[in-house]
Amino acid sequence: MGTSSAEAAFPPLFRLAAGLRLVLASHSPRRRQFLREWGLPFTLLAPSCDEPRPLPGEAPAAYACRAARAKVMAARAAEGRRPAGDRRLLLGADTIVALGADILGKPQSAEHAMAMLRRLSGATHEVISAVCLLGPDDEEVTFHDVSRVRFAAWPDAVLAAYVATHEPDDKAGAYAVQGQGAVLVEAVDGSWSTVVGLPVTPLATIMLQRGWMQPAG
Amino acid sequence: MGTSSAEAAFPPLFRLAAGLRLVLASHSPRRRQFLREWGLPFTLLAPSCDEPRPLPGEAPAAYACRAARAKVMAARAAEGRRPAGDRRLLLGADTIVALGADILGKPQSAEHAMAMLRRLSGATHEVISAVCLLGPDDEEVTFHDVSRVRFAAWPDAVLAAYVATHEPDDKAGAYAVQGQGAVLVEAVDGSWSTVVGLPVTPLATIMLQRGWMQPAG
Repeated sequence: MGTSSAEAAFPPLFRLAAGLRLVLASHSPRRRQFLREWGLPFTLLAPSCDEPRPLPGEAPAAYACRAARAKVMAARAAEGRRPAGDRRLLLGADTIVALGADILGKPQSAEHAMAMLRRLSGATHEVISAVCLLGPDDEEVTFHDVSRVRFAAWPDAVLAAYVATHEPDDKAGAYAVQGQGAVLVEAVDGSWSTVVGLPVTPLATIMLQRGWMQPAG
Repeated sequence: MGTSSAEAAFPPLFRLAAGLRLVLASHSPRRRQFLREWGLPFTLLAPSCDEPRPLPGEAPAAYACRAARAKVMAARAAEGRRPAGDRRLLLGADTIVALGADILGKPQSAEHAMAMLRRLSGATHEVISAVCLLGPDDEEVTFHDVSRVRFAAWPDAVLAAYVATHEPDDKAGAYAVQGQGAVLVEAVDGSWSTVVGLPVTPLATIMLQRGWMQPAG
């Protein structure tokens, strides 16, 4: 990892178990940032894989778990044959925005982003983040967390100004709660990090329980 | 304002009303960051003033409003006589952490931070952010917003590792939800920005309603 200002080192909050290496199967800058804030070293192995499509009638949470697992399995396939005794922990995640039974993906255009934001405005939707962990002996732990997000009701002019910032372009549901989109969100009921894209509290709990990391110090 | 990487310009989401200048009566880096994310230019005028102390029996929200107002009034006193026709909007804010009837301030030492975090661990507390606005004709708008924050139950070793990062040192309640402290917080019920220190959604709504700003574009 470089050490540009965006990747400044944090005093460690956790440390990995001795001999364990952490491999992140995600391109998301915010997921990397959470791990940096924990003080954990990691490498990236996120081969592009065909993102699974939701199946007819599949529950949003089940779909998110399946997508997180697909990222981890693509990384596992890419890592090839590991040396004997190699201890790695693969971490993949997927985040989806669900409005009722509809899953909102990334917008295809400014008009599409505007249409999504109009649907979210004045309403409550769910953000589901799923995490798949594959431990040193290929033991798998997959879990998900759900947060409810309530948008204030915004006039079109505000939504259009937000679309014009281009922040929505590559965001599921066409907004970023950790960015300029923060103002749109009246309230969250649940974990904020789940809305950002990584449920850090249950993730830390599981990693501590499994002995994959310890508190620093 | 400088233009270091931490102060990068954002594509504007809002713009101030013509002729209006915004003056922030706060030293908080996160409050500045929210205004930058809106794309609003502002200057700082935050003279050190004696922070008011909670009165016996005073409700936490009433105290937060009084403290926000005190910051604005200190800035108003410091600005001296304004030229005729000068149109400025003063903005002050205060954030407090309340556990039951107790208001938790900034920790005085590492031991004090540890004691606060032990009280918050496994419990739900309230974060109250109050904002005071003083418009061009000295018209005053003061409001507050309350969010409930639930900490997961953490062992002492995790809390001690967090104290050792020094992030708690200058934070009310000894944690920063937007920083390494994010992992401690299992759930928020309410506005995340209120927990960070500025209730951006009601603030934007009021500023739009009063005509102090408009959507950009």
